[in-house]
Amino acid sequence: MTRFKLTLEYDGTTLLGWQRQLDGPSAQEYLEKAAFGFTGQEVEIMAAGRTDAGVHALGQVAHVDLDTKLNEYRLLQAFNAHLRQLEAPVAVLKIEVAPEGFHARFSAQGRGYIYRILNRAAPPIIDKNRVWWLPYKLDIEAMRQGAAYLLGHHDFSSFRAAACQAKSPLKTLDKLDIERLGEEIIFTVEARSFLHHQVRNMVGTLKQVGNGEIAPEEVKNILEKKDRSAAGPTAPACGLYLSKVVY
Amino acid sequence: MTRFKLTLEYDGTTLLGWQRQLDGPSAQEYLEKAAFGFTGQEVEIMAAGRTDAGVHALGQVAHVDLDTKLNEYRLLQAFNAHLRQLEAPVAVLKIEVAPEGFHARFSAQGRGYIYRILNRAAPPIIDKNRVWWLPYKLDIEAMRQGAAYLLGHHDFSSFRAAACQAKSPLKTLDKLDIERLGEEIIFTVEARSFLHHQVRNMVGTLKQVGNGEIAPEEVKNILEKKDRSAAGPTAPACGLYLSKVVY
Repeated sequence: MTRFKLTLEYDGTTLLGWQRQLDGPSAQEYLEKAAFGFTGQEVEIMAAGRTDAGVHALGQVAHVDLDTKLNEYRLLQAFNAHLRQLEAPVAVLKIEVAPEGFHARFSAQGRGYIYRILNRAAPPIIDKNRVWWLPYKLDIEAMRQGAAYLLGHHDFSSFRAAACQAKSPLKTLDKLDIERLGEEIIFTVEARSFLHHQVRNMVGTLKQVGNGEIAPEEVKNILEKKDRSAAGPTAPACGLYLSKVVY
Repeated sequence: MTRFKLTLEYDGTTLLGWQRQLDGPSAQEYLEKAAFGFTGQEVEIMAAGRTDAGVHALGQVAHVDLDTKLNEYRLLQAFNAHLRQLEAPVAVLKIEVAPEGFHARFSAQGRGYIYRILNRAAPPIIDKNRVWWLPYKLDIEAMRQGAAYLLGHHDFSSFRAAACQAKSPLKTLDKLDIERLGEEIIFTVEARSFLHHQVRNMVGTLKQVGNGEIAPEEVKNILEKKDRSAAGPTAPACGLYLSKVVY
C-alpha cells in the first residue's frame, strides 16, 4: 500500500462541494469512483479541506492509499482517463508518492484562495460561473484600506458561518491582496486555515467598502463586534478558488 | 434611425457561429431576438466577420440601425437584460453611436485573434471548451521560427479552407506572436483580413513544428506549395477567439 499525494483542479459549478453527499455529485465521489475504475479498490480520498458547493479548486490537495504497481505518471493518466469517462468536472494535475506520515489535512501548513470579481457593465460570458459580476464602480484603494484591518491574528467571528465547526474563531490572516487585472478585481488570500465562509464573508464586506456603503475604518469595528450580523453578506461561491495548499 | 456600433463577447461552444442558421442558435440570432424584445423592430445585425461554430469572441464588432430614444447606456442594459432572458451565451460589452458611413464589415481595417493552447498533462477543467489541450511538450522556440515565415504578404492557399469565399488567397499577416503564459501557449494574430480557417490552419501547422513532426523551415515550403494538403490539420475551434476589430 502506497500513499499518494494528489493535486487537483475542479469546477465547482455542478458539484455539491468537495465532500461525498447522498444527494448529488462531489469531487470526492468522482475521484473515488475513478480510483475504483482502474484499481477495483474502494478507497477513501481525503482532502486538505472541504470546499462548498459552487467553489472551484486550482490546487486542492488530497491523499489516497493505493495498492498499485502503476508509477505516478501512469496513475495520473489512469485517474484522468476515468474522470473523463465519468464526465467529471475534475482533473488530477499532479501525483507524487507522499512523504512518510503525510496527511492531506493534518500536514497542511497553509491554504491559499483567490476570489475573482468581474467589474464591468456587461455580464460574464466566457467566464460565466467563474467570477462574481459587479457592474458598478468599486474603489479598490478603499477596499485595500479595509482589508488591512483584517490582516494578522484576530477573532474572526464576524466572518464565520453559523455552521462552522472550528473549535476556535481565532485565526491568523497572512495575506489579503487586492489587485485590478483588466476588468477583474482579484483577491489573493492566505492563512494557515480559515473559518467556514471566512473568505467569502470578507470579500462580501470589502465589496461594501468598494461601493461606498461602508467606510474602510468600519471593517475594524465589524471585526471587533465578533458578530456575524455586523459584517456584509457572503460573496457568491462561483468567484472563489482554492488555489494552493502548503505543506 | 440611428446606426449603433456594438462590441460583443460570446461563447461559441453551443453556437453554430456568428451567422443566423435555420438549424441552431447563432450569436446573430440571439442579438436580433434581443433587439426585437425591447424595440419590437425586426432588425438585421451585421458583424465585422463571421466566426465558425465553437469559435469565441472577446471583441467582435457589429452594427445595427435602430429607431430608439434610448441612449447608449440604456441600450447596453436593454440588450444584456434580454440576452440574459434568452439564456444567450452572448453579451454586449459596449455600444456607441456609429460614425457617419460606418459599416461593421466594410469599414474594418484589421482583425485580431488569439488562440489558446493548454499545454499540460491534465485535461482542462476550469477552461474546458476554452483551449486546445495538448498534453505533450511543445518547442515554443521552433514554433516561433516557423511562424516567422508566415509574416508579411503571401498567397495563403495552403492555409485556406475549401469553403473559403474570398476572391483572392493573397493576404498580409501583420502579427503572429507566440508566448507561454503559465501552462498556456498563446498565439496573437493580426491582419487586415483572413481566409476561412486561416488562423486555425496556421496554428495546426505550427503545433506540428512544436512537437517535432516538421522542421521550422518546412513552414516556408508549405506556404510555397499553395496547396491545403501540404499544411497541418485545422486546430479545433474551441481555442480561437476573435479578440478585436480595428477601424
